[in-house]
Amino acid sequence: MSAPDDVMAAYLDATRERRLQRYMDFIRIPSISGIPAHAPDCRRAAGVLASELSEAGLEHAEVCETGGHPVVYADWLHAGPEAPTVLVYAHYDVQPVDPVELWSYAPFEPAIRDGRMLGRGSSDDKAQVQMHVRAAEAMLATRGALPVNLRYIFEGEEECTSEHLDGWLQANRERLAADFAVISDTGFFDGNLPAITVGLRGICYVQIDVEGPTVDLHSGSYGGAVVNPATALCAMVTALKGPDGRIRVPGFYDDVVPLSERDREAFAALPFDEAAWMDEIGVDALAGEAGYTNLERRSARPTLDVNGIWAGFTGDGPKTIIPAHAHAKVSCRLVANQEPAKILAAIRAFVAEIAPPGVRVRVQDLGLGLPSLTPIDHPATQAAARAIEATFGRAPLYYREGGSIPVTASFESTLGLPVVLLGFANPDSRAHAPDESMVLNNFETGIRTIARYWDELAALPVGALRL
Amino acid sequence: MSAPDDVMAAYLDATRERRLQRYMDFIRIPSISGIPAHAPDCRRAAGVLASELSEAGLEHAEVCETGGHPVVYADWLHAGPEAPTVLVYAHYDVQPVDPVELWSYAPFEPAIRDGRMLGRGSSDDKAQVQMHVRAAEAMLATRGALPVNLRYIFEGEEECTSEHLDGWLQANRERLAADFAVISDTGFFDGNLPAITVGLRGICYVQIDVEGPTVDLHSGSYGGAVVNPATALCAMVTALKGPDGRIRVPGFYDDVVPLSERDREAFAALPFDEAAWMDEIGVDALAGEAGYTNLERRSARPTLDVNGIWAGFTGDGPKTIIPAHAHAKVSCRLVANQEPAKILAAIRAFVAEIAPPGVRVRVQDLGLGLPSLTPIDHPATQAAARAIEATFGRAPLYYREGGSIPVTASFESTLGLPVVLLGFANPDSRAHAPDESMVLNNFETGIRTIARYWDELAALPVGALRL
Repeated sequence: MSAPDDVMAAYLDATRERRLQRYMDFIRIPSISGIPAHAPDCRRAAGVLASELSEAGLEHAEVCETGGHPVVYADWLHAGPEAPTVLVYAHYDVQPVDPVELWSYAPFEPAIRDGRMLGRGSSDDKAQVQMHVRAAEAMLATRGALPVNLRYIFEGEEECTSEHLDGWLQANRERLAADFAVISDTGFFDGNLPAITVGLRGICYVQIDVEGPTVDLHSGSYGGAVVNPATALCAMVTALKGPDGRIRVPGFYDDVVPLSERDREAFAALPFDEAAWMDEIGVDALAGEAGYTNLERRSARPTLDVNGIWAGFTGDGPKTIIPAHAHAKVSCRLVANQEPAKILAAIRAFVAEIAPPGVRVRVQDLGLGLPSLTPIDHPATQAAARAIEATFGRAPLYYREGGSIPVTASFESTLGLPVVLLGFANPDSRAHAPDESMVLNNFETGIRTIARYWDELAALPVGALRL
Repeated sequence: MSAPDDVMAAYLDATRERRLQRYMDFIRIPSISGIPAHAPDCRRAAGVLASELSEAGLEHAEVCETGGHPVVYADWLHAGPEAPTVLVYAHYDVQPVDPVELWSYAPFEPAIRDGRMLGRGSSDDKAQVQMHVRAAEAMLATRGALPVNLRYIFEGEEECTSEHLDGWLQANRERLAADFAVISDTGFFDGNLPAITVGLRGICYVQIDVEGPTVDLHSGSYGGAVVNPATALCAMVTALKGPDGRIRVPGFYDDVVPLSERDREAFAALPFDEAAWMDEIGVDALAGEAGYTNLERRSARPTLDVNGIWAGFTGDGPKTIIPAHAHAKVSCRLVANQEPAKILAAIRAFVAEIAPPGVRVRVQDLGLGLPSLTPIDHPATQAAARAIEATFGRAPLYYREGGSIPVTASFESTLGLPVVLLGFANPDSRAHAPDESMVLNNFETGIRTIARYWDELAALPVGALRL
């Protein structure tokens, strides 16, 4: 491993202002992948990112067509055949911003306040895209080389379930050869404690559409004899999960790997102030699957949530109709070893079974993603832990995240690569919600962690990653 | 009773084109009372109507302030103290038009097609407003007088539960003295058979608001431990009504007057082709309260329907959040002798009881209206029946409407007046739904029915209405 690198540290200190301006420029692009009207913004973000990668000194920067929002690729492969090759992943697309009236600032007009960068994507995941670019830039600017071979993939469809990524990975298997993958789309543990994520949940996201009468009907003239699609939808949604928090879809739990005693001890050992957490999100009571702790429920057990529902009249005042149709977006978080496609089929079968006569019910697939569990004792994981400890001054915790990064499983299954989840988001970043923000210390120190990580990997014995 | 009036008939034949133009002009005003932004349109409609009443020869035409959308008043009181005095009611406000994309024509650009007037309000209730104006105009133009004393009240808040009407009626009791009231806001029976409505349902319209976490939460990071407001709302809505169609709110049925054997025989005698009716609304199965027929369920039994529901993300694609809040508009149709305020209290108590910990639940009152039952054998009802038979060539059926016209109960309770529900809308008018229309034969013949009705009332023995 190289000695502490004062030249690079000085470079990073000197370029802070320019780096933050670039980060803000990047947030200004409303690259909301889930809303078709923002497709041009996604493409613009991809173009800007490719330019930044080139400027940083990386090579072969390219906006790659996928059939959807593009992937941005770049590499630097001059560390020699003995040096590790790492595939780096983050995503440049962001979540929608509604309800926009709940933001205390304009989501695409970034600003720095109280040591945080504000804006949609400031944390998830534009911060980590920028951190990787800046870490490489600093190394190349001060040393003229990187200690490892790096291939970068920045995706534009992570927030809309990565529809085209698997196909693109398959088609580019050759050029993506690597020893392992680093995915930077996770964060620190509550209390902003440095952490490495070792588990991610998968997802099965559906839309349930209920169609009733041809048109909205007068609820006075027809009410009492016609099946109300909104009422039917509520009943079906309610039937999906019991009051004990257990999902009632037959077969749902069949493939779930039960938590071992050791798993449960590890969860119990994590520092967690439930009262402070409840206070932060503004609720005075919790609920969940019987027999599991808060942390287990949120990361190691599958769930089912309504993400959106709509039917009939939603404006001000009363309107007396039986809605012609009703819709709900419902997603399940999955854990190892549930198969999303099997869960989708189980939901479809159950919904068909409980759909009442008098309405037509359809279950649309809005996206599937595999769950993932990664090994703590892999040398790439342990090198990441050393880089974190060297830069943040504290050894990382190991925990499971409740969210889904389907590409993790894609890298594992499609490319056959081990995955290290190295992420720096502060836990109170309000990802996906109004008032998203990123703690700038995580951003700045994280850039140094990434650079240190490449040095740590280069210092491993030759072949250590090829076990 | 006066002899058949050829002069008036000729006048009506000669003025048809002008009358239809006025009717179309009136539909062009988007007087949607339930949407605050349309308040100026309601006021404009009121002003136009007052002008038309004056032009028709009626007196004291006035746009009266109510605290909400105005009431339009006019009268003609020169038939003498022995002649009956009739209070006439219809409403100039209309329902919202969404989902506007389901209309096959622009809702506020009326047109005549296949013997129908097309447009929002073409039937409910601008047709009947215009019919009363034109009937009075024809009599005054050809005879210089009306056979009875008439007072007109045209309301602008019927479609948003008549919030200010009761107060206005109370404040104007003196000037509204009459023998009975005619309300024109109902229609013919299925098959477009002439009918007089003898029962109306009341209403209790609420909005259930469920508040959870302060902001939308990432469903991956929080899902499994946080109470989802949308899921909670679905469960509460589902708990309101059982699969047997019975409303589960304790006390809900306490005051319902049971149907007598005679009532049920009358319902059974009504012509009704259920298969054709199902085909018309586009459903292949029905449901409702066990033990009652279709017609009973829709008019003589109370109901509960979701009129609208919304929470979380409702745009295209997936968004992975736990919504911070969820809302449903829920209305109950009530029958004699249910009291809307008592039902509201019962719903509030039940919702409070079933609301889960972890969310805050509120039940807003969006409007209450009393149910009504009117006597078939009242001389004013029987005179209406003779007028219908003389003009439409067929004696009317007597039936109960499932909808609510709260003013009916207001006239009964506030002004102490018997009420005759004389309405002409074709049953397939799609009131409250996209593609509303009015059969022009009902409109034209109905104008003649109204004129004939005034003659029939004038022919009653003096004092016949003051039983």
